[in-house]
Amino acid sequence: MAKYQQLIDQLQQQISSEVWLPGEKLPSLREQVALSGMSLMTVMHAYQVLESQGWIQSRPQSGYYVAPRADFLSQPASHQKVQLAESVDINAFIFDVLQACRDPRILPFGSAFPDPELFPQRQLMRSLASVSHTMKPADALNNLPPGNEALRKTLAQRYALQGIQVSPDEIVITNGAMEALNLSMQAVTEPGDWVAIENPCFYGALQVIERLKLKAVAIATDPQHGMDLDELERALERWPIKACWMMTNQQNPVGHTLTKAKKQRLVEILSAHKVTLIEDDVYNELYFGHEKPLPAKAFELEQSVLHCSSFSKNLVAGFRVGWVVAGQHAQRIQRLQLMSTLSTSTPMQLALANYLLTRSYDSHLRKLRMLLEQRKNQARQSLKRHLPVEARINDSQGGYFLWVELPRQVNTTELYYRALNNNISIAPGKMFSSGEQYANYFRFNASWAWGDAQEAAVAILGGLIAEML
Amino acid sequence: MAKYQQLIDQLQQQISSEVWLPGEKLPSLREQVALSGMSLMTVMHAYQVLESQGWIQSRPQSGYYVAPRADFLSQPASHQKVQLAESVDINAFIFDVLQACRDPRILPFGSAFPDPELFPQRQLMRSLASVSHTMKPADALNNLPPGNEALRKTLAQRYALQGIQVSPDEIVITNGAMEALNLSMQAVTEPGDWVAIENPCFYGALQVIERLKLKAVAIATDPQHGMDLDELERALERWPIKACWMMTNQQNPVGHTLTKAKKQRLVEILSAHKVTLIEDDVYNELYFGHEKPLPAKAFELEQSVLHCSSFSKNLVAGFRVGWVVAGQHAQRIQRLQLMSTLSTSTPMQLALANYLLTRSYDSHLRKLRMLLEQRKNQARQSLKRHLPVEARINDSQGGYFLWVELPRQVNTTELYYRALNNNISIAPGKMFSSGEQYANYFRFNASWAWGDAQEAAVAILGGLIAEML
Repeated sequence: MAKYQQLIDQLQQQISSEVWLPGEKLPSLREQVALSGMSLMTVMHAYQVLESQGWIQSRPQSGYYVAPRADFLSQPASHQKVQLAESVDINAFIFDVLQACRDPRILPFGSAFPDPELFPQRQLMRSLASVSHTMKPADALNNLPPGNEALRKTLAQRYALQGIQVSPDEIVITNGAMEALNLSMQAVTEPGDWVAIENPCFYGALQVIERLKLKAVAIATDPQHGMDLDELERALERWPIKACWMMTNQQNPVGHTLTKAKKQRLVEILSAHKVTLIEDDVYNELYFGHEKPLPAKAFELEQSVLHCSSFSKNLVAGFRVGWVVAGQHAQRIQRLQLMSTLSTSTPMQLALANYLLTRSYDSHLRKLRMLLEQRKNQARQSLKRHLPVEARINDSQGGYFLWVELPRQVNTTELYYRALNNNISIAPGKMFSSGEQYANYFRFNASWAWGDAQEAAVAILGGLIAEML
Repeated sequence: MAKYQQLIDQLQQQISSEVWLPGEKLPSLREQVALSGMSLMTVMHAYQVLESQGWIQSRPQSGYYVAPRADFLSQPASHQKVQLAESVDINAFIFDVLQACRDPRILPFGSAFPDPELFPQRQLMRSLASVSHTMKPADALNNLPPGNEALRKTLAQRYALQGIQVSPDEIVITNGAMEALNLSMQAVTEPGDWVAIENPCFYGALQVIERLKLKAVAIATDPQHGMDLDELERALERWPIKACWMMTNQQNPVGHTLTKAKKQRLVEILSAHKVTLIEDDVYNELYFGHEKPLPAKAFELEQSVLHCSSFSKNLVAGFRVGWVVAGQHAQRIQRLQLMSTLSTSTPMQLALANYLLTRSYDSHLRKLRMLLEQRKNQARQSLKRHLPVEARINDSQGGYFLWVELPRQVNTTELYYRALNNNISIAPGKMFSSGEQYANYFRFNASWAWGDAQEAAVAILGGLIAEML
């Protein structure tokens, strides 16, 4: 066993047996060097690992402390299901990855956006032209928060078609789902509050947590089964969690859609602990099955779910129109919006309301789902052809992401840089977690039309991985 | 002297002579009743006045404490120039006032927006139609933060025409100036930090301070002379202020434009204390003089000014396009935007870039300024005709707001409700300060075409005020 691992085991045991209590200061690095007879490098490494696992916390100019109520972590670190992050560190890395996807010379398999060529450009532009003929100066005032009335009515009707009772009055139109999620989180938390998130999760959740100075408990989320609800329940008993941010359908990045039974149990668990669910449902129209999966919102008890979605992933890029079904929080969210961006742009709201009146949205969605399923199959086949046999490519019945697990020795951040040198981008696992446990995973955007360039790029990717094995 | 005033004087003297030190707990209300022999009502009133003057602070479930470093307040309260607000309280009232302005039956003299009929609707809609013919699916990607390149170049050129060197690369396009100001404030502060604002000020500043959990020092800002820079300097010496939010041109609500010399001194004072200036310059195109006034940005030393503006007050309502010249903070602000709203809508950016290429913006602005000056004169004449002679109507060489001071006994919040009963809205002084010192002021939006309805409404307003005298 490596020396630093001995120290890790020793300290974990001491913390579990309450030699060091939560909140207590640990021996300083130099003291530990004297105590253990190990080198400063070894001690530092051990402390850093313990910190990344949530056992201990560093405080600037002060030293290391036992993390609050760290006792639940006494299971072996390799099976650790909950990851504790006092302050989620948002890496400039995420922005670099997103930035690289904007370079037209680069094949954007790391992108978060679907191929914009999949969208009904002509019809949308017709709606925009129509707005340019009919919009009146006073419309700006009428489309301030909560937003365009026709649009909110159409959205309420779409919920009704799924059997979900939503009043147009509890919907707030936002600058994309991103603003909806931000405002929702802000409406139900204060800085310093605890929230539960998925692990791995959409990096936007990590960013909001950092921006709003929240503390996060990340619950293991599996490509096969989704979030471990037992772990969630244990976390809710141990921390004063205020809100839970989750993607219940086509989770980003793993692709899992929770079963009805799990959605129902999720809502029950959260309600029992009076925790608000912020449901990020931006991929809900991109299912490949026969029926649109219900959101957890459909099972809610006492208005405890804020359901957020948008048109950005299934209809139009760049309009920046999303919404939140905010229930009792609708007024607070409107006010937060008035004081942060004032409102969503009027012509964009009117153009979408106009497009939805044409009733071509559902036929567009049917075509989109079919194309995405084809493209995802082609991409998966190509990855299977070119990646080493040890690679596990997770498939899912929806969305446009493939979540790829490589052998442990392949660090996908390293792979990302090597691929970028070949004008190929991927989204390394590091982007989706505040910990290191997805260092050998990457997310692959499979929404692009498949051709020789794509096939060649995947072959190069396979070669790069083989080199790293 | 009233009994409560005796207690106020006594406690002020005790605090000044350090009987009670900053941070110390004062006797509770019940203890003070026992000590002073006064009634609970009298004691409560005295404590509330002391709190509103910044001498003491209440903490929920705890009691009253001497405000931190309250010694500077030892000048007579009637000349108090700096107001201390540990936590600025944002009243639902502001939203009610804004909401009332949206009712078409109500004459919106309380509105913050200029008459949208003043805007070049036809040309703007032509630009929007043009976008609907030329926009490509991939444009969404190209207009992510920092935003549309042509638009940023045109903005940089407009700065250059004023002799201000700005690179397109340091401009970030935002969802209106509101988002620009929010992101700027967030980029340079942490929760709990101190900032300096104007008193009275745009209520948006109070809201951002509340949203970002900042602490504010409000510096007296006079309709005749603008901010008292000596007071600002003293405040900078006494508090660890991180940023200052100011409107240097056509300040909202008082209408003052700082002289060149004062702008220069402002920048020097702030630079000496390493304090960032967040310059809210949304009314800068609405000057009535011969020359567009320079922003404080023009005098900056070492990129210490974040200059925020938008098209919303001078060209178009509801497009939600603004910007910040962010200098060294440009990248941080882009990232904050990516994680809060992602970006400004693409068609809106393209439509404005298209409109600006037509080169009709400046001729529109010339007409707009002429019309606003006429309308403001008409409104002022009407107010003079109908308001009691004691009313002081502040005029200014720009913008569309009149700032009206009424005799002390007229509470403008009360006046607001009475006027609203007559389908007239005004913006009471209470909206623009966390204190009570503008309780006899109101802001009047003078951008509307003047007709019989407006004249009759002002006559009613005059009658209501007369009743309250």
